Amino acid sequence: MAEMSKDTLAELTEVLAQRRAADPDKSYVAKLYSKGQDAILKKVGEEATEVVMASKDQMPDQVVYEVADLWFHSMVLLAWHGKSSQDVLAELQRRFGLSGLEEKASRKS
Amino acid sequence: MAEMSKDTLAELTEVLAQRRAADPDKSYVAKLYSKGQDAILKKVGEEATEVVMASKDQMPDQVVYEVADLWFHSMVLLAWHGKSSQDVLAELQRRFGLSGLEEKASRKS
Amino acid sequence: MAEMSKDTLAELTEVLAQRRAADPDKSYVAKLYSKGQDAILKKVGEEATEVVMASKDQMPDQVVYEVADLWFHSMVLLAWHGKSSQDVLAELQRRFGLSGLEEKASRKS
Amino acid sequence: MAEMSKDTLAELTEVLAQRRAADPDKSYVAKLYSKGQDAILKKVGEEATEVVMASKDQMPDQVVYEVADLWFHSMVLLAWHGKSSQDVLAELQRRFGLSGLEEKASRKS
Repeated sequence: MAEMSKDTLAELTEVLAQRRAADPDKSYVAKLYSKGQDAILKKVGEEATEVVMASKDQMPDQVVYEVADLWFHSMVLLAWHGKSSQDVLAELQRRFGLSGLEEKASRKS
Repeated sequence: MAEMSKDTLAELTEVLAQRRAADPDKSYVAKLYSKGQDAILKKVGEEATEVVMASKDQMPDQVVYEVADLWFHSMVLLAWHGKSSQDVLAELQRRFGLSGLEEKASRKS
Repeated sequence: MAEMSKDTLAELTEVLAQRRAADPDKSYVAKLYSKGQDAILKKVGEEATEVVMASKDQMPDQVVYEVADLWFHSMVLLAWHGKSSQDVLAELQRRFGLSGLEEKASRKS
Repeated sequence: MAEMSKDTLAELTEVLAQRRAADPDKSYVAKLYSKGQDAILKKVGEEATEVVMASKDQMPDQVVYEVADLWFHSMVLLAWHGKSSQDVLAELQRRFGLSGLEEKASRKS
């Protein structure tokens, strides 16, 4: 399972970069991005509300679905600020004293 | 950089599981978790608002910091529902047709 | 100015009641109401986010506009629960020890 | 019932103005106001989330309580921007074609 996250967020960052450059009439991400910061923020707020609603409905799969929406729109926002999920993960590593790259490197050898 | 996300979210999931089992007087996660769903949801809503505020302040590092807070509290909520960030990543893979699982399978062999 | 609020919220409560009974194809309120609780809650969350955004933009008139949106959608939600703005005002009176009807009655005499 | 709103919001506007000028150690409003815009906005976001939660819990009285919290903190924010609930009511009148202003004008004469 651990392998999964590595590729997913890094791949998604690349996919988002490609889609931002696409035709706004054909790509949701390009359209949202072209609308600008406020449109992205509205989505972040909206998805957070939907996470709360799904949770109160006691529907775990729906919570997963809405958190995916929330994280995805967070990533569009990060890109808008020249940041990415990698910066968020680095912050979480720092905060929780996670071993991240170093430990992994030592495990590999 | 791509390597980073793999360990971070998987490690954080483990750290959260350990902390949930800790003394609520000594661990923020244990305390929040013991307060229950509503307390966790309040934090999710609160952190989403702080993401919006940091973004409008045009402070990219602060956006990263607040998104880290938002994702972290999302993960506490996922745990509350018996889910984890791995489920969210699987949903993002499915949605965006990311190679994730397949690539992992091929690397394993 | 004090006279203004009296009629506005009471009138708006009546207008909302009329519109809820209208054709959902012709009335925004009827349409929103027919979609149910979750649709109304999404709007409440959305409008709260827009209040935050307008405030951070330092645009007082826009803050007023978005708070009006937020209060209006709050009133649709209250109606959905068989409540009205009058209940909210009664709660605010209770909480702040406002004189409300009694004082007004004495002032009239 | 219609009479109630008139005094409540106007009175509350006055109460808020008095409390803002009070000692921040003794008044919640003075303390919140002295913390500044971001602290007020966090509360607005927080209360909106609590409205959503109370609604999903199907507890009408709790919805009223949380909407009161949301409106109250909206009023603190309006004051921060040099605005008041009267401006919000004027916007709602304009938007819904409510008689408010006209009726007031006729009463004045």
